[in-house]
Amino acid sequence: MTKLRVIKIGGNVIDNDVVLQHVLDDVARIGEPFILVHGGGAIATELNTRLGIPTAMVDGRRITDADTLRTVTMVYAGLINKSLVASLHARACTAMGLCGPDANIVLSTKRGTVERDYGFVGDVVNVDATALQTLLQLVHCVVVAPITHDGRGQLLNTNADTMAAEIAAALCAHASVELTYVFDHPGVMRSIDDPTSVIAELALADIKPLTASGIISKGMVPKIDNAMRAAAAGARVRICGPRDIHTNAGTRIRTEHA
Amino acid sequence: MTKLRVIKIGGNVIDNDVVLQHVLDDVARIGEPFILVHGGGAIATELNTRLGIPTAMVDGRRITDADTLRTVTMVYAGLINKSLVASLHARACTAMGLCGPDANIVLSTKRGTVERDYGFVGDVVNVDATALQTLLQLVHCVVVAPITHDGRGQLLNTNADTMAAEIAAALCAHASVELTYVFDHPGVMRSIDDPTSVIAELALADIKPLTASGIISKGMVPKIDNAMRAAAAGARVRICGPRDIHTNAGTRIRTEHA
Repeated sequence: MTKLRVIKIGGNVIDNDVVLQHVLDDVARIGEPFILVHGGGAIATELNTRLGIPTAMVDGRRITDADTLRTVTMVYAGLINKSLVASLHARACTAMGLCGPDANIVLSTKRGTVERDYGFVGDVVNVDATALQTLLQLVHCVVVAPITHDGRGQLLNTNADTMAAEIAAALCAHASVELTYVFDHPGVMRSIDDPTSVIAELALADIKPLTASGIISKGMVPKIDNAMRAAAAGARVRICGPRDIHTNAGTRIRTEHA
Repeated sequence: MTKLRVIKIGGNVIDNDVVLQHVLDDVARIGEPFILVHGGGAIATELNTRLGIPTAMVDGRRITDADTLRTVTMVYAGLINKSLVASLHARACTAMGLCGPDANIVLSTKRGTVERDYGFVGDVVNVDATALQTLLQLVHCVVVAPITHDGRGQLLNTNADTMAAEIAAALCAHASVELTYVFDHPGVMRSIDDPTSVIAELALADIKPLTASGIISKGMVPKIDNAMRAAAAGARVRICGPRDIHTNAGTRIRTEHA
């Protein structure tokens, strides 16, 4: 079966140019075709601030009003996406940058407002894995920005961790998929201040007690939720630091299937 | 030979939402595969103003400093490009939005600074017509933003009329190409206030006297220059108003080949 990697790089990686350049060096030498999903938190927040648009976050998720949707579309699908693509080409890694509406690769639906109104936020409905595979015959890397659409003309802001998980899960029907969440810690840690406390393997049964004890908290809760979903679909999933794209370090997600 | 259309829509079309929606209705029902190249002047200028970045124009061309390059990348390749793609899908026209670095479709080189320093402005070096054709087997329309790259990691701002002409010219080796410049006038006019004064046909020999008499002036000079280059490469070229995508109205460019 074809091998394929999905790499998610978080906002903290993108915000630090030294780290980002190193990560780009590393991903550019991945042998198999890969999909690079990126977020881009701080730049969007900074642009909002300069434009006088208030930034509201709830549980690590951005409330997306109409102005903020414009901002994130500009920053994620424009500035960051195209800068990454140009940087990969400069490293002899052919790339193409897309977001959800492009070739309809990720279709979403606006999140309901019963519990809370997140605004123009989209929950993934469908990933076109066949289109992604076709594109990966043309370029070595497809760079994906976390903007989606509802098919009726509305762009929507979508969590980048979720995009990566849904893309990885959808591709499992076509390829042997490895999903790697790259962020600014060396993995899921028992103690945030102790780099040796990385949890090497995490199974579904571990989540509840670790969440109860506060070891899994804040933004790590949805990240592990996404990781579990991709693993359940058949992807090999790992959460690791920016230096570990070509190692086996970090936290490996284990499922009953594995 | 395969038929293919290249449609360029200018900033004035994008800035007027009523006109834009009508143009999108029209392009969405084009039967053959097509490439939609867009500019997006006023939105970028407005964003620059809000960010306190001065906008400098010389002969209708934007001087692109580092801050302005960020702005146009965000607005052209992000906001406008993705909004157009989502709007086309809503009209049952499959689309995908790209700019130069994506699959390396348009490679450019930073313009020399001997006569004048335009900043981060790119002159087209190569169009990958084969990649564009492959993509047009996946979607009905490729939407192209006028941002290019130099292959060494630098994004560059490129004139959208030129992008359209170079893309049309490159595709002539593979398809029967029709290039249509859609702008806010019904064609090249003898008198700007008289809509009946549209020049139906323009040949290379007409350019010099019409320019000398001031009938071809300002932004129309480079537009016709681009139109002539595409026509010389074998494209059928027309300059027309926003209601004429499916008519034969406007100004037809004639070459010795035609």
